[in-house]
Amino acid sequence: MRVVVPFATNDPKTRLSDRLSPAERREFSRAMLEDVLEAIRGSGGEIEVLATAPLDIDAPVTVDDRPLTDAVNAALVPETAVVMADLPLITVAVLEELFETPGDVVLAPGRGGGTNALVSRQPDFRVDYHDGSFPKHRASAAELGSVAVVDSHRLATDIDEPADLVELLIHGEGRATDWLRDAGFELARTESRLGIERE
Amino acid sequence: MRVVVPFATNDPKTRLSDRLSPAERREFSRAMLEDVLEAIRGSGGEIEVLATAPLDIDAPVTVDDRPLTDAVNAALVPETAVVMADLPLITVAVLEELFETPGDVVLAPGRGGGTNALVSRQPDFRVDYHDGSFPKHRASAAELGSVAVVDSHRLATDIDEPADLVELLIHGEGRATDWLRDAGFELARTESRLGIERE
Repeated sequence: MRVVVPFATNDPKTRLSDRLSPAERREFSRAMLEDVLEAIRGSGGEIEVLATAPLDIDAPVTVDDRPLTDAVNAALVPETAVVMADLPLITVAVLEELFETPGDVVLAPGRGGGTNALVSRQPDFRVDYHDGSFPKHRASAAELGSVAVVDSHRLATDIDEPADLVELLIHGEGRATDWLRDAGFELARTESRLGIERE
Repeated sequence: MRVVVPFATNDPKTRLSDRLSPAERREFSRAMLEDVLEAIRGSGGEIEVLATAPLDIDAPVTVDDRPLTDAVNAALVPETAVVMADLPLITVAVLEELFETPGDVVLAPGRGGGTNALVSRQPDFRVDYHDGSFPKHRASAAELGSVAVVDSHRLATDIDEPADLVELLIHGEGRATDWLRDAGFELARTESRLGIERE
């Protein structure tokens, strides 16, 4: 399976700005990307990093500085998976489930209505990542053919906000989790769910 | 499989207090319970609602007014599942996956470090639902035998906070989702992820 991984090189993960410096956000997003690429390699996927600017990384890179939706649609020929770069809980097993699930379009929702990963086998399917993409993708794919949804907490957990870091500290094992621990983050008890604190 | 479903009858879902009145929170939590019980019936599970007070419902009810941890441990003989009542995205398929996953203890994490569902086949396993139960359950179960983790966004999505209602409006199909829509809630665009608004 050809697997496109969009990656924004410039000012990544701005919603973590109150916890991480710009340089830290770059390092952390790069560690998440490496975790995603390692899982894709383990699943036998053929990686194509779709970056907004040239990137020094041990994987094939296509540079396209257009907005995410336009860049992905330009890369979206049938039998392509699109996997976001901020899914450090991803595993080989869950990628295999994604790739092997039958359907003209297979969608893995992100928490909050995003689309964290997908497989398109339908030549007319187009993405639209603005404003809660999952309901839109599900509806447009259903008009074109069969749609399947992969139910995975690991795929649903894109790392955007401080609360998401909790999931990484609980369930993560890769470079991004190591980076976070080395940066001084650890689990903290809050009133309800677990939170994070930094030394 | 015997399936224990803890249910607090008194002042449920307090973290939704700024969106729902006390009477609404009772109705909504009851609708979520009904969704969970329907899925358990569909999976062939043998229901035991573990309620803090008598409850008029079409299912066997055991009343135990002790705190959650104590009440569940009193009910936890081997070959028992414990499934929380605030999981309205639950399906027959995901329950079957939970019940059929091998392991002395099988855990389904909730977002934020909780344990939303589990199966115990180990006579010495005890629960402790305080303060981020999932890491504690994973560690204590590993000392007793084999541990498996079920990776499911549906099982990970317990409905506690307003942001959780978004998941229900996107992915839900049962009574709780209908109740929420009838109460005037709908998806709203926010700066990043989808939010909710009420008419």
